[in-house]
Amino acid sequence: MLETSAPSETNTLASYVTASRLEDIPADVRHEARRAIVNYVGCAVGGSAHPAVDIAIAALGPFSGKPTAAVLGRADRLDPLHASLMNGISSHVYDYDDTTPKNYSHPTSPVASALFAYASANPVSGRDFMLAFILGFEAESRVANSVYPAHYDVGWHITGTSGVFGAATAIGRLLRLSVQEMVWAIGLAATQAAGLREMFGSMAKAFHPGRSAQNGYVAALLAKQGFTAGEHGIEGPRGFAAVQAAAFDLSKITTRLGVDFDLRENTYKPFPCGIVNHPTIDGCIQLHDEDRPAPDAIRAVRLRVAPLVMDLCNQQNITRGLQGKFSVYHGAALGLVRGKAGIQEYTDEAVNDPAIKYVRERATAVGDPAITEDQARIEVELTDGRVLHKFVEQSLGNLGRPLSDRQLDAKFRDQAVLALPAGDVESLIPLCWRIDALDDVNELVRAAVPAAARVIPASRRA
Amino acid sequence: MLETSAPSETNTLASYVTASRLEDIPADVRHEARRAIVNYVGCAVGGSAHPAVDIAIAALGPFSGKPTAAVLGRADRLDPLHASLMNGISSHVYDYDDTTPKNYSHPTSPVASALFAYASANPVSGRDFMLAFILGFEAESRVANSVYPAHYDVGWHITGTSGVFGAATAIGRLLRLSVQEMVWAIGLAATQAAGLREMFGSMAKAFHPGRSAQNGYVAALLAKQGFTAGEHGIEGPRGFAAVQAAAFDLSKITTRLGVDFDLRENTYKPFPCGIVNHPTIDGCIQLHDEDRPAPDAIRAVRLRVAPLVMDLCNQQNITRGLQGKFSVYHGAALGLVRGKAGIQEYTDEAVNDPAIKYVRERATAVGDPAITEDQARIEVELTDGRVLHKFVEQSLGNLGRPLSDRQLDAKFRDQAVLALPAGDVESLIPLCWRIDALDDVNELVRAAVPAAARVIPASRRA
Repeated sequence: MLETSAPSETNTLASYVTASRLEDIPADVRHEARRAIVNYVGCAVGGSAHPAVDIAIAALGPFSGKPTAAVLGRADRLDPLHASLMNGISSHVYDYDDTTPKNYSHPTSPVASALFAYASANPVSGRDFMLAFILGFEAESRVANSVYPAHYDVGWHITGTSGVFGAATAIGRLLRLSVQEMVWAIGLAATQAAGLREMFGSMAKAFHPGRSAQNGYVAALLAKQGFTAGEHGIEGPRGFAAVQAAAFDLSKITTRLGVDFDLRENTYKPFPCGIVNHPTIDGCIQLHDEDRPAPDAIRAVRLRVAPLVMDLCNQQNITRGLQGKFSVYHGAALGLVRGKAGIQEYTDEAVNDPAIKYVRERATAVGDPAITEDQARIEVELTDGRVLHKFVEQSLGNLGRPLSDRQLDAKFRDQAVLALPAGDVESLIPLCWRIDALDDVNELVRAAVPAAARVIPASRRA
Repeated sequence: MLETSAPSETNTLASYVTASRLEDIPADVRHEARRAIVNYVGCAVGGSAHPAVDIAIAALGPFSGKPTAAVLGRADRLDPLHASLMNGISSHVYDYDDTTPKNYSHPTSPVASALFAYASANPVSGRDFMLAFILGFEAESRVANSVYPAHYDVGWHITGTSGVFGAATAIGRLLRLSVQEMVWAIGLAATQAAGLREMFGSMAKAFHPGRSAQNGYVAALLAKQGFTAGEHGIEGPRGFAAVQAAAFDLSKITTRLGVDFDLRENTYKPFPCGIVNHPTIDGCIQLHDEDRPAPDAIRAVRLRVAPLVMDLCNQQNITRGLQGKFSVYHGAALGLVRGKAGIQEYTDEAVNDPAIKYVRERATAVGDPAITEDQARIEVELTDGRVLHKFVEQSLGNLGRPLSDRQLDAKFRDQAVLALPAGDVESLIPLCWRIDALDDVNELVRAAVPAAARVIPASRRA
C-alpha cells in the first residue's frame, strides 16, 4: 500500500459531516431542502394508509419498544427505530418521492424517515434538523454517485444501498458523533447496504428506504456507544464500492465537498410511478387533452423510449397496482384514457379497468439510444386511420422543467387528504415550508398525525 | 424467457422447507445437528460477556420491545428480535463457531441465534426446534454453495449474506408459513443480504450473523402477515445470485435436496480464530510440545501456507485481540510460545505480550498453491543454527480429523465458564445434547442464563 498523507474518503466524509454548520450551506440549497421536505411529508402522510404499512405495523408493532415516536400520518406510536421503518415504507410505497437523476436514487426518504422518527421522540430544533438532513442527503448522494451506474445496473436498488449512509450520517450528526464514531457509523452503514431491484413490483421495494433509515439509525446508535467497525467502509478493498460495483470513482465523494450540493439536482415527480415512464405519460396526457380519442378508437400505441425504460418498465401483462408503476404501457394508457396519472391511477382497480387494459394491450415500445431518459416519441394510430404524434423533449418535473413551489403544494394536498382532514392538511403545509424556523420539529410532527395521536413527549413537557 | 414447468429454485426451497418432517432427516444428520447446537451454545454463552455485546445492549436495549426473550449467557431480557441480534454477536465474537468448508460460512449462528430467541419467548418442542434448525441450516448452506466462491472472493462475508436465508426459513417454518409466504420470506431475506469482509478485525464482523438472524426473523414475520416480495429472490435476473456473485450455480440449491445434508460437512474449530490459520497453529503447538524453544532462541519462523491465508490473514503489525484472529503470524507465535491458542490468547494483552510479539515479528509467510487450506509447512530457525520442520497434512477440527463429542464438551466448558458457574455449565451440557427430546426448549434456555434471569414466560405458566 502506498504511504500517503491524504485521508480516506470515509474519513473525509465523516470529518465534513461532523464539522459543517448551517451557516456554511448556501441559501438556495436550504430552500431546495425545504422543497424536498415538503414533497417528502406529503408522500409519507399520503402513503401512511397503504396496506404495506398496515401489514408492517401488524407484523412488527408487537416487537416495538417504548412508543416514544410518531409515524407520519398515523395514530400508531412506535419506538423510533420502528417508526423510521414505517416512515420509509409510507413515503416510497406510491413511488412518488423525489429522485436525483445523477444516480436514480430516491434520496430524501431514508434520511428524513429516520430524522422525523428521531425528532418525534427527542427535542430537535428546526435548524439542527435541516442541517442533519442536508448533510445526510449529500453524504448518501455522493456515495451513490461514486458507484453509479455500475452498481445500479447490476441490480442494486440504490435508494436502499446508499440510503443507509444518509440515515447513519444524519442521525450521527444529531447524536454529535466524533469523527472516529462517524467513521464507524459509516462502516456499519456500509456493511448493511442492501436492497435488490428484483423486488420491484412488490411491497419489498418500499421496505428498502424504510430499512435503510432504520439500519442507518442503528449504525449511529452503535457507533455512539463505541461499537467498532472497519475504518474503510466505503473505499477499502472489501468495502462498499469495491464489493458492490464493478466500476467506481471515489473522487465523486470528496470533490468540492461543501461547495457543490446534490440537493440542487433533486427532482419531484408529478406522477407516482417509475420516473423513466414520465415523458411517455406526459406526452400521452398532452395527446388526450388535444384529441380526446375514445379508448376503442385506438388501434395501436407505438412508443420510442430510452433503452433504460425497456430495462425497468417493460411489463405488459399486469394485474396489480404496484406492477403498473413499472409498466410504460400502463402509463401510456393512463395518459390517453384518463388524461391524468395520480395515486388513483395505480390501484389494482385502475390496472384492471377494461378501457385502460384495452389501450395498454395495444401499446408497444422500442428502446432507442437516440431518445434520452427525459424524452419520449409517441405515435397513436386510430381506427379512422389518423396517426397522432407527440415528441416530449423535457418531461414535467425534470430539472429543466421543475415543479414550482405551488405545484408541490398541490401535490402535497392530493396525497395528504388520503390520511388527514383537509383543514389539517392546510395547517401542515406552511409548517413544512418553515421547518428550519421551528423551535422543535415535533410541532410539525404533531400536525402530521391524526388529532388523537398528538402527544407531546414526556421529555419535552414543561 | 423460456416457458418451463420446472419450479424456480426459490419455490423449490420454499416447498421443501415448509413440507419436510423430522422423520425424513437421517439419524446421522440429527446427531450432527446436536453437535452443532452444543458447539453453538458454548460459543454463545462464552461470548456473552464480551464488550461487543455490552455495547450493543447499551446502544439498542433502550429500543427493545417487551422483554419476552432471553439472551444466552446473560441476565438481560429483550424482545426476540433484539435477542436474536445479541445471540448472534456473542456466538461469533470470538470466531470460535462452526464452519462449512464447502463455502466458508459459519452456518449455525444466524439460524440458532434466531431460533433460541424465538424459543425463549414462545413454546417450542425440541423436535420442532431441531427440524427448523436443520432446514434453516440446509437452506442457507445451499444458497451459499450456489454463489461460492465468486461471492466470497469479491468481499462478501458469506456468513451474514447467506445466514439471513437460514434464519428466515427456520423462523418461517416455526411460524408455519405457506409456500407463498415462504417465497416472500426468502425474497425479504435476499433483499437484506449484507455484510462486508472489510469489517474483519472489528466488532462489526460479529454484528453480521446477529443482524442476519434478526433480519431473517423480520422477513418471516412480515411474510406471515402478507407483506409481499419478489417471487424470485434467489434466481431472478436481479436477485441475490445474479447481483451478488459474478458466477453462480443454482443447481446447488436444488440437487439432492432432502437427500444430501450439509450438516454432514460441518466442522468445529479447536482455535477461536480464522480457520485458515488452524494448520499453522496446530503445527506450531506440535513444535512447542516437541522442542519447547525459548522465544528469544527463535531467529525466524518461515511459513508456507495456502494462498487464501495470505488473502485473509496477512496482518503483521497488530495491537488488538480481534486483529490477532486474522494474523497467521500471531497464530504461529501463540503455538510456539504458549503451546495453546484459546480465548485468552486472542486478548489485547496476548497480542501485546512481548514474547509473542517478538516471535510474531520474526515470522514470514508465503502463499503456495501446492499447500491446501488444511495444510501448513513450518520452518523454525533457532539462534543455535538448528532448523525445526513440521508439515501438517490435516489440521485438527477438519472433516478428516473432527473434534469428538467429548472434545466438544471440553471446548464448551472452556468457554461457558466465562459467563456461568461451573456447576451450571455441567447441567447445561447434557440439555444441549438432548435438545430434541425436550418438551420445551425454554428448559435449555433457562439453564443457559444466570440463575436470577431464569424466568418462565407468562405464555407458558400453568
